[in-house]
Amino acid sequence: MLNFDYQNPTRIIFGQGSTSKLSRSVPPKARVLVLYGGGSVRRNGTLDDVLAALQQDGERHVAEFSGIEPNPTFETLMRAVQQVHEEQIDFLLAVGGGSVIDGTKFVAAAARLPASEDAWSILESRGRVIKDALPFGAVLTLPATGSEMNAGGVVTRAATHDKISFSSRLLYPQFSILDPVRTYTLPARQVANGVVDAFVHTMEQYLTYPVDARVQDRFAEGLLRTLVEIGPDAVARPEDYDTRANLVWSATMALNGLIGAGVPQDWATHMIGHELTALHGIDHGRTLAIVLPAVMEVRREAKRDKLLQYAERVWDIRDGDADARIDAAIARTRSFFESLGVPTRLGDYQLGADAIDPLVAALEKHGMTQLGEKQDITPDVSRQILQAAL
Amino acid sequence: MLNFDYQNPTRIIFGQGSTSKLSRSVPPKARVLVLYGGGSVRRNGTLDDVLAALQQDGERHVAEFSGIEPNPTFETLMRAVQQVHEEQIDFLLAVGGGSVIDGTKFVAAAARLPASEDAWSILESRGRVIKDALPFGAVLTLPATGSEMNAGGVVTRAATHDKISFSSRLLYPQFSILDPVRTYTLPARQVANGVVDAFVHTMEQYLTYPVDARVQDRFAEGLLRTLVEIGPDAVARPEDYDTRANLVWSATMALNGLIGAGVPQDWATHMIGHELTALHGIDHGRTLAIVLPAVMEVRREAKRDKLLQYAERVWDIRDGDADARIDAAIARTRSFFESLGVPTRLGDYQLGADAIDPLVAALEKHGMTQLGEKQDITPDVSRQILQAAL
Repeated sequence: MLNFDYQNPTRIIFGQGSTSKLSRSVPPKARVLVLYGGGSVRRNGTLDDVLAALQQDGERHVAEFSGIEPNPTFETLMRAVQQVHEEQIDFLLAVGGGSVIDGTKFVAAAARLPASEDAWSILESRGRVIKDALPFGAVLTLPATGSEMNAGGVVTRAATHDKISFSSRLLYPQFSILDPVRTYTLPARQVANGVVDAFVHTMEQYLTYPVDARVQDRFAEGLLRTLVEIGPDAVARPEDYDTRANLVWSATMALNGLIGAGVPQDWATHMIGHELTALHGIDHGRTLAIVLPAVMEVRREAKRDKLLQYAERVWDIRDGDADARIDAAIARTRSFFESLGVPTRLGDYQLGADAIDPLVAALEKHGMTQLGEKQDITPDVSRQILQAAL
Repeated sequence: MLNFDYQNPTRIIFGQGSTSKLSRSVPPKARVLVLYGGGSVRRNGTLDDVLAALQQDGERHVAEFSGIEPNPTFETLMRAVQQVHEEQIDFLLAVGGGSVIDGTKFVAAAARLPASEDAWSILESRGRVIKDALPFGAVLTLPATGSEMNAGGVVTRAATHDKISFSSRLLYPQFSILDPVRTYTLPARQVANGVVDAFVHTMEQYLTYPVDARVQDRFAEGLLRTLVEIGPDAVARPEDYDTRANLVWSATMALNGLIGAGVPQDWATHMIGHELTALHGIDHGRTLAIVLPAVMEVRREAKRDKLLQYAERVWDIRDGDADARIDAAIARTRSFFESLGVPTRLGDYQLGADAIDPLVAALEKHGMTQLGEKQDITPDVSRQILQAAL
């Protein structure tokens, strides 16, 4: 096991009806800005419930900021920062999925940046310039990214198509309200994307090389098996409470730092996927379904031991020689994604070999030239991965 | 899945050499009281390392309190509270196992109790009177109780043999340093007890009835399988780093609140076990090895579904009818404990049927008359359990 330093202070308030606990979780005299995306939280009643809950124990100043995009942009978020300053906001409340929570983290950091510092430096430094942040909480509506219980985010600069991650220990939500019922009205496509996202988050922290970290391996395998068991039902039966509860908790646990503590981590699938979103507008979760099977194929030697463990413990594949078991595990992974309605090939998005050079160039531009758990996924290897994803 | 409210703010600094990070974790100007048990941390060098690390970044006021017993007593701990007041201590550092950390939690709470309040009220109220506590950290030397990452403790009143648990959200350690090397010099008996303790903590939160909490079940099963895999080696090969690392992390994860969030919990084994320690001085872990197999036997109908799941997922028992599989799972559990050198019968401690009445009377005295996940373990059922443990 590798050494690690783990702390996650976020309070999780989980279950049906938990929005009613919101008022006790937000500081009593806070001036609150509620941030959300499009009209869905307005249409499905979540926003009304949140606004009512905030006033439950006495009047509060509550403002709203809407229009945070699925891949939140620096440009939009800077308008929220301006509103924070104008209205002297001192608490942020994200109502939405990973994009809204990621965006709220950026606003929390940017609002407390010294005036001398350009907010873009948060992204340029991947969060290292953050020395202070507004406190914030979240009401989760879309299980996928884990942003509700971690301290990272991803923001895109619309002008340049740069999609950049950042993190800081100051960016854990103070609390997150996770009510599975809030997810019932999600489009099936977003649920499917969320299952893939949680699955690939787990794989990025699991499918590397063995370091005899047995608890972490078992926990990761438990999340993967759970997602395999519930994934199709989560998409097909939106109002099955326990299925959605298991999806929500799996997605949160997949990226709250716990399963990644003390083990090597990969993240190449995410970094290559980010360029597919930035250049071609493919949903984040869907980019992962394209890239992961190709990573497994191209990296089968470097990941051999863990691929065999994954085949046995997640898919019960025990027959055949080692290579056949690895082939079967990759095929099962691909067909799991496809069973959710998520395609796994660049060709499914009308992207051919000519799309690869610009993607590799974008990786190079963003410094993504030494990816993977051994930092040996060079631009050439990324090219092989994209070719395997055609 | 049941609703839950989960938060665990303790920072875990894990791995070989992590004591060197102590100085950065204790507030710079704190007046520190280091609390420990007997001479073992002095003999094996841990205490010297801790004291040196505390002075690493400049001189600090550091006092010591030694003599916290394996089942820490109210009487001893009140002497530590007095020292806290006399020396104006404002930070506590526990160096030891669960008893030292539990005792430190009690001291942290008692030191900040209003003068009008008797410290015994902390135990009488099971922690509800706690409104403030001194901050504290821990350097763990014995993997077992999970106290290093939870907010509970158990304290005994020597005069009356009352062994009482308490908890408060104010009693999470600010940090815990978990260096597996610190466990190398433990006696084999304490390591074996620790394996049993972690195993039974997991079972108390797992072996109840199904609520379709798949992540929690998989995580619990992962801890149980890990303990089964590493237990014998943890006892037999004290200097195998990865084995001890896996034991330490399993024991911490077994009782930090995570696997118990959103599921029913039992704790009857612990409550009955506490009376065995209080009346007969049997080590805590060893009492659990006596009581758990008897609980599984007596409660086999109430726990039927989970017993079958446990048989299959932890022990790979798939053949035979349901009752045969349950019998096999109980037998495997018993022989696992015995393979560690931990006996599983009252008779192994020269206790016979005549010991049962006083134990049941003690449970009644302590209000333990509705134990178990359905509160239906009455004193009569506890009697049956003790009879099954003869």
